[in-house]
Amino acid sequence: MATNIDVTRRPFSVIAADKVQGTAVYDADGNRLGSIEYIMLDKIGGRVAYAVLSFGGFLGIGEKYHPLPWDVLRYDPVKGGYVINMTRAQLERAPTIDAKDSVDWENEAWGERVYGHYGVQRYWL
Amino acid sequence: MATNIDVTRRPFSVIAADKVQGTAVYDADGNRLGSIEYIMLDKIGGRVAYAVLSFGGFLGIGEKYHPLPWDVLRYDPVKGGYVINMTRAQLERAPTIDAKDSVDWENEAWGERVYGHYGVQRYWL
Repeated sequence: MATNIDVTRRPFSVIAADKVQGTAVYDADGNRLGSIEYIMLDKIGGRVAYAVLSFGGFLGIGEKYHPLPWDVLRYDPVKGGYVINMTRAQLERAPTIDAKDSVDWENEAWGERVYGHYGVQRYWL
Repeated sequence: MATNIDVTRRPFSVIAADKVQGTAVYDADGNRLGSIEYIMLDKIGGRVAYAVLSFGGFLGIGEKYHPLPWDVLRYDPVKGGYVINMTRAQLERAPTIDAKDSVDWENEAWGERVYGHYGVQRYWL
């Protein structure tokens, strides 16, 4: 009813977690950077700890995986995808990971490095 | 190192969202109630809006689906599953849903009913 709803709070937009995978991610200029490959969830807090962006490459070759703090992603209902305030060149300098199982997700120093790169406060501190 | 770590904050326990599906859920007495069938994620807030528990039935027949606020679930690292402070009989009176696509997840009145049933404040208010 009100037109000035605070969209950061509600109406909230609910989606099955397994459908977030594959959602497109765009840079601030609207260029498609890649898509959400998978989500790492904080079991205790019920929050997204990391959204992993697959970026670049072709048919899976040369692809890079960037763990992102959720707060870096701004959902754009018009685009139906996420926008990050970062250029392709900036993203190329961001922390990358290899296979999901090879990452020590709970390592504090690593978490600090990733969140720090994006200037986002770790929510679990 | 410290033995009195506040486990509600850290060390946080990170898991791929697609692996939370299938995690067992127990009642307060340690009886297995069912398992997490899927997770509905709040796109904007990056939080788990609902964890859907499949409960009862046999080989998928007679199974019921209960949407739960995440805060109802307490993760038990020893059990490797979630514990809810509720008996089987209490759960049988809880709100149920049918197919994922038939639910109006963003309906406020419905959200109020589900969260209210468990006495949990809706986090998006």
